[in-house]
Amino acid sequence: MTQPLDIAVIGATGTLGETLVQILEERDFPVGNLYLLASSESAGHAVAFRGKNVRVREVDAFDFAKARLVFFAAGPAITRSYAPRAANAGCLIIDLGAGLDAVPNVVPEANPQVLAGLKSPAQVASPSSAAIALAVILAPLKQQLQPQRIDVTACLAVSALGREGVSELARQTAELLNVRPLEPRFFDRQMAFNVLAQVGKSDDQGHGLLERRLVTELRELLGTPLLKISVTCIQVPVFFGDSFSVSVHCAAAVALAGVEKTLDTAPGIERVEAGDYPTAVGDAVGQDVVYVGRLRGGIDDGNQLNFWATVDNARKGGALNAVQIAELLIKDLV
Amino acid sequence: MTQPLDIAVIGATGTLGETLVQILEERDFPVGNLYLLASSESAGHAVAFRGKNVRVREVDAFDFAKARLVFFAAGPAITRSYAPRAANAGCLIIDLGAGLDAVPNVVPEANPQVLAGLKSPAQVASPSSAAIALAVILAPLKQQLQPQRIDVTACLAVSALGREGVSELARQTAELLNVRPLEPRFFDRQMAFNVLAQVGKSDDQGHGLLERRLVTELRELLGTPLLKISVTCIQVPVFFGDSFSVSVHCAAAVALAGVEKTLDTAPGIERVEAGDYPTAVGDAVGQDVVYVGRLRGGIDDGNQLNFWATVDNARKGGALNAVQIAELLIKDLV
Repeated sequence: MTQPLDIAVIGATGTLGETLVQILEERDFPVGNLYLLASSESAGHAVAFRGKNVRVREVDAFDFAKARLVFFAAGPAITRSYAPRAANAGCLIIDLGAGLDAVPNVVPEANPQVLAGLKSPAQVASPSSAAIALAVILAPLKQQLQPQRIDVTACLAVSALGREGVSELARQTAELLNVRPLEPRFFDRQMAFNVLAQVGKSDDQGHGLLERRLVTELRELLGTPLLKISVTCIQVPVFFGDSFSVSVHCAAAVALAGVEKTLDTAPGIERVEAGDYPTAVGDAVGQDVVYVGRLRGGIDDGNQLNFWATVDNARKGGALNAVQIAELLIKDLV
Repeated sequence: MTQPLDIAVIGATGTLGETLVQILEERDFPVGNLYLLASSESAGHAVAFRGKNVRVREVDAFDFAKARLVFFAAGPAITRSYAPRAANAGCLIIDLGAGLDAVPNVVPEANPQVLAGLKSPAQVASPSSAAIALAVILAPLKQQLQPQRIDVTACLAVSALGREGVSELARQTAELLNVRPLEPRFFDRQMAFNVLAQVGKSDDQGHGLLERRLVTELRELLGTPLLKISVTCIQVPVFFGDSFSVSVHCAAAVALAGVEKTLDTAPGIERVEAGDYPTAVGDAVGQDVVYVGRLRGGIDDGNQLNFWATVDNARKGGALNAVQIAELLIKDLV
């Protein structure tokens, strides 16, 4: 049996942090002491773990020498502030919030081999929900398809923006259903019954930072630095669960039966039969796998594969992937 | 001044038919007698036109010799049943519902020249909302871009499915907000706060009939029979207004400034400045133009153009395009 590890979670009161604590419990992760940390505003809250309430403390006052493994489930600024302290204390670090540069992104179904090559104590990043979902599906197909170009429209849930995104969609929806005038607060315009063409900030070439991040992460996860990827991230009025419309342009003709066979035996994937399709709410939410459906060729191009995928952005698209990384890391420790 | 024409509208009580009557009035179309026709269930209703209520009559009892111009805003089966009678009576026919084969699709901003070549009395089809929106944007760019391949994810509003789609989204949303158990009726699963990966029926290769229709129509409208098009139509929880995430792969490097200049002078287009973007609800609904924004190159491909477009699916994406076709047709009559 694995030796219990003392663990710290930074950003423990956010949706991602709370899901992480829940998944550590669900998967019976060998947790010794659990330190839940957050900014001073959230300190004092309590989060349930194994039947007890664990008090959330202020991260700034934390002695990182107490923890062996630290999950950063906070924003990039917080992670950049405290990761050096965790590193100096010799902690293993898993970053869920894209706060650290020059740290490898890992999705256990796609590039677990990366972990073996890391200097100890390891620092690993768990990538964005979109990169995780697409890597889980495309990694086992890479040899077979030899993808040349991927076009993605990522339909992202508001919960990726935390509790404020969720409550703002609910509030806007209720106002509109009650025919009251809408005053957008958290989003800069109407989110209820609407689709926003951009998620977060964009650069001066018009690419969203999240879009650039997906391109970089997916190339890294697949080990295909030259793969061309075009991506549009849109914000849909969905509380939980991300969906992806994907076209893959391949080097040769796509054999659909072979693709289905590969996906059916690959880990972390549930393929939905032809004629049906998965949805964020109906399938992905609360589940640990990536759902894929609407697998089809191109209408006019035999070298094309189209599909639709959905993932729980808080679980496999977020906290679960980080815990799976941790499970692999601690195997090497014992 | 143009001579008034006696006009019949088949499917006058549907959302498309009602919008059509409203646009005929708004644009001061030279209407003589207006015959509003529908199935026996809807006969007896009244629709307002120029300050009066026009009674809806049963299409089956209508003498098509009374009309010079007939709009078919009904389902394909109805159109196929009655179009031969309209044709035998010598009526001009404009089909908004994809009911007629071997009839040219026209978008006045894209291929108005087609109308001049038609045998009289002309039969013209007004294509799907997606094909209209994309043709308005891509037709003026065709020479400049020489598109080789287009990837589209079309986010379609529930109003394309008529009043039942609208009321079902409202009903589902209210149930969920009130934490009542959801029983999907019109859609086969939860539509509120969810995205469905397919719209309508699909063929045995997994392509939606609407997806195939878009490919066929867009090639015809652009006069590019060999253009490769990959399309995914998804149903989003939006009442009115369709949105499109589009990647165009071009023969040569894309000059963004030139694209913007062309779009700024082309008819029927409103370009939203870089840094902002249009939405279905905030921009397109109630308007007569196609909105385009998020114009940007590829992250890793100079030959790529990406953009986001929105259109009012009932107006320019539906009834307005049909009325614009009629305006051109009657010019030739006078």
